[in-house]
Amino acid sequence: MINVTIWNEFEHERKEEHIRAIYPDGMHMAIARGIAAEDLAIRTATLEEPEHGLTEAVLDDTDVLIWWGHIAHRRVEDAVVERVYNRVLDGMGLIVLHSAHVSKIFRKLMGTGCMLKWRELGEKERIWVVNPAHPIAAGLDEYFELSQEEMYGEHFDIPTPDELVFISWFEGGEVFRSGCTFYRGLGRIFYFRPGHETYPTYHDPNVLKVIANAVRWAAAPRGAKPVRGHCPEPLEPVRGRS
Amino acid sequence: MINVTIWNEFEHERKEEHIRAIYPDGMHMAIARGIAAEDLAIRTATLEEPEHGLTEAVLDDTDVLIWWGHIAHRRVEDAVVERVYNRVLDGMGLIVLHSAHVSKIFRKLMGTGCMLKWRELGEKERIWVVNPAHPIAAGLDEYFELSQEEMYGEHFDIPTPDELVFISWFEGGEVFRSGCTFYRGLGRIFYFRPGHETYPTYHDPNVLKVIANAVRWAAAPRGAKPVRGHCPEPLEPVRGRS
Amino acid sequence: MINVTIWNEFEHERKEEHIRAIYPDGMHMAIARGIAAEDLAIRTATLEEPEHGLTEAVLDDTDVLIWWGHIAHRRVEDAVVERVYNRVLDGMGLIVLHSAHVSKIFRKLMGTGCMLKWRELGEKERIWVVNPAHPIAAGLDEYFELSQEEMYGEHFDIPTPDELVFISWFEGGEVFRSGCTFYRGLGRIFYFRPGHETYPTYHDPNVLKVIANAVRWAAAPRGAKPVRGHCPEPLEPVRGRS
Amino acid sequence: MINVTIWNEFEHERKEEHIRAIYPDGMHMAIARGIAAEDLAIRTATLEEPEHGLTEAVLDDTDVLIWWGHIAHRRVEDAVVERVYNRVLDGMGLIVLHSAHVSKIFRKLMGTGCMLKWRELGEKERIWVVNPAHPIAAGLDEYFELSQEEMYGEHFDIPTPDELVFISWFEGGEVFRSGCTFYRGLGRIFYFRPGHETYPTYHDPNVLKVIANAVRWAAAPRGAKPVRGHCPEPLEPVRGRS
Repeated sequence: MINVTIWNEFEHERKEEHIRAIYPDGMHMAIARGIAAEDLAIRTATLEEPEHGLTEAVLDDTDVLIWWGHIAHRRVEDAVVERVYNRVLDGMGLIVLHSAHVSKIFRKLMGTGCMLKWRELGEKERIWVVNPAHPIAAGLDEYFELSQEEMYGEHFDIPTPDELVFISWFEGGEVFRSGCTFYRGLGRIFYFRPGHETYPTYHDPNVLKVIANAVRWAAAPRGAKPVRGHCPEPLEPVRGRS
Repeated sequence: MINVTIWNEFEHERKEEHIRAIYPDGMHMAIARGIAAEDLAIRTATLEEPEHGLTEAVLDDTDVLIWWGHIAHRRVEDAVVERVYNRVLDGMGLIVLHSAHVSKIFRKLMGTGCMLKWRELGEKERIWVVNPAHPIAAGLDEYFELSQEEMYGEHFDIPTPDELVFISWFEGGEVFRSGCTFYRGLGRIFYFRPGHETYPTYHDPNVLKVIANAVRWAAAPRGAKPVRGHCPEPLEPVRGRS
Repeated sequence: MINVTIWNEFEHERKEEHIRAIYPDGMHMAIARGIAAEDLAIRTATLEEPEHGLTEAVLDDTDVLIWWGHIAHRRVEDAVVERVYNRVLDGMGLIVLHSAHVSKIFRKLMGTGCMLKWRELGEKERIWVVNPAHPIAAGLDEYFELSQEEMYGEHFDIPTPDELVFISWFEGGEVFRSGCTFYRGLGRIFYFRPGHETYPTYHDPNVLKVIANAVRWAAAPRGAKPVRGHCPEPLEPVRGRS
Repeated sequence: MINVTIWNEFEHERKEEHIRAIYPDGMHMAIARGIAAEDLAIRTATLEEPEHGLTEAVLDDTDVLIWWGHIAHRRVEDAVVERVYNRVLDGMGLIVLHSAHVSKIFRKLMGTGCMLKWRELGEKERIWVVNPAHPIAAGLDEYFELSQEEMYGEHFDIPTPDELVFISWFEGGEVFRSGCTFYRGLGRIFYFRPGHETYPTYHDPNVLKVIANAVRWAAAPRGAKPVRGHCPEPLEPVRGRS
């Protein structure tokens, strides 16, 4: 059983009617329903909850955290960011969606500005699989389309991804590295581009399939927690040791 | 259920008594017993069988192929190598063990010479996990040791691995990239260094754990078979098209 | 001084008038003139010359080899391919252009099929820089355009590039990994997509700049030739050595 | 001409006699003399100078910054760290030496803890070249040795390096990824392990050669500064645009 926590700032959907029309109870609930499966125990958390719903107890019980944020990045408390950050390095999976590219947690983990180009014309996006052997591409055709999305364009200011799974083509002329994995400490991170709040992206079956694949990829077992720090005793005899 | 075929040239164990003493019915059988689990359907194949036991029918029924070879690389028929090669690019997992670094199939897939340094003094090898977040490291401590192994040293003439999971330390002074993944087409390949025939390496619980992890990593679902070749109709209108 | 040899099969330009109109003395000569500089000593070689112009003596005097081929891949002698292959692994730079993606030499070095999607409608290509810190991107803006080119689309069946420098956007809806580096042995390889024979691509200043950058990247000094093979004497004492 | 600034906290050498004996005027001066060449304009800067010697004016005039720190990481002002950080993303090269693995600037750029194992017994280190085609390995043999060094062992908590150039073998039984490149924004970063203050490491010709190689690698020209942010006008017509 994989314990999944879906975090959403949940601002747009509460405050803007045309967005609530698409996601009446929030994008987190759309994702939760969309990826529901027997092997996933899913809960949600939002900005307005105490500690943003990401208490020690919740994170203790989270194998994979999904993160959506946009207009409220600054309102996320640094202490919670630090907590999530440490959990990721200790092995929690993290799936960063769309505008969370400039969330505090993603920027802190990447070490770069994470900025990009953007434009909101509702243009077509075609997402090409460039590593079909990757488990995050499981069950996808060679590409899938979103008829209307916000454009994100290069240069995307991230570290070179450990694995590049998707590249987006945009009607307006840009390309984007849309599906990127990053190993960090014991953690596995996946950035996935689509998901602007004004489009029904998280109702799209391919988008949901990718998120579900990423959850399982991020939750797979890993090695023991590394030992670091002072290690005075050598494993082998050292000559000339005083 | 994952269908695993373990291929072994099975020469040393039949012909050299001190090796038969370690692997009475062959390394393939030691590995088969060592990784046996409810989700694995394991069969074996050897050089002397017709088509080396790797008929179309067997490969049709193989999700992951494990390969051990050493003194008989040249006796493997090119037609079988070609068959295995095409299967890997079409999505079969391949786990290449020890001296199979210069097998025809591995060299063909890598495109390089795949040579390395070697020495057989029975020296100690310590295998360090350098990507503890990788599923192939699942359940391992920060390192494990083999008290006696053949030494393999750098420079190992392979393409840069897609993921480097293990680095070996050798008593005699060398290091080696011992656990390397490669994505090729729809296939996933893992090279794993240990396994000289004169040592009981394939009875070692950590070695067997790595092989079992690699089988599950290599067998995970992937995307659809890519469409390639002439594609005369554009997906979008092309201006000025005659 | 960098010794550059530009190899071109030189078939289209000799036999098809509309192509000769663009490249009267061949694409190799257009490239030679286009990248001419004080630090480059450039020669050319073509298919019809003895040993395709790639004798031992010529390769002895070549730091970087540029390769363009299309309809005559099969006419390139295996012995010459083998010679070039060994030179690359021994440290010669190799720049593979456009339709040479299925040349014998590139496929042998990559170990994969190297196929892709293609379409010839003369559509627009926009080449985005995704690693602006890479020396092959030196002097380029964030993108450059070719108003008419053949389309190459994913999935491009190559190993994961060591460095991905460019991604192409095509008018017809596809994307492509257009600038890819690969380290192999002591050699450095760069694949660069543009260059269909029916368009004046090798007269484009940005395309020429990329090729010139790649020549200098591929020619930079490297380490000593690795020692491989049997290495019976350990660098450190091995306990229990008989 | 490449403008190089060598930054050293310069604490040990001023305060501890046995270290001053090795580096009478500081490690920065040893490195400056050791890499001196006609194409390098070298200056130094230290912690005690105003703004740690890293004023806007100095950084304006710096192509590559070399950084050594150990016991005074916390005394480096955040404003200076931020300034250096922004310069790196804008294209300044950065070479991070030894104990600077936990400097503020390296940790901020990496986004991880950057911790490792360490032990100070003066044991032997043998540094193996694992990518002999990389320009940072130029002029090196297949390995070089340091007869006495501090040990650094895995797991080294860094992002997967973009290029892994060196792996260290330690007498006491550990291995370490000792030469790692990272592309970040327009910047190029190289981490190089050796250099404990109690050993004459920065007098070693191979160590100095690596640092000099890294300076030239980090200083090579790059592409234009990327354009990011809101980009309302598409490059191509968008259908259905209101």
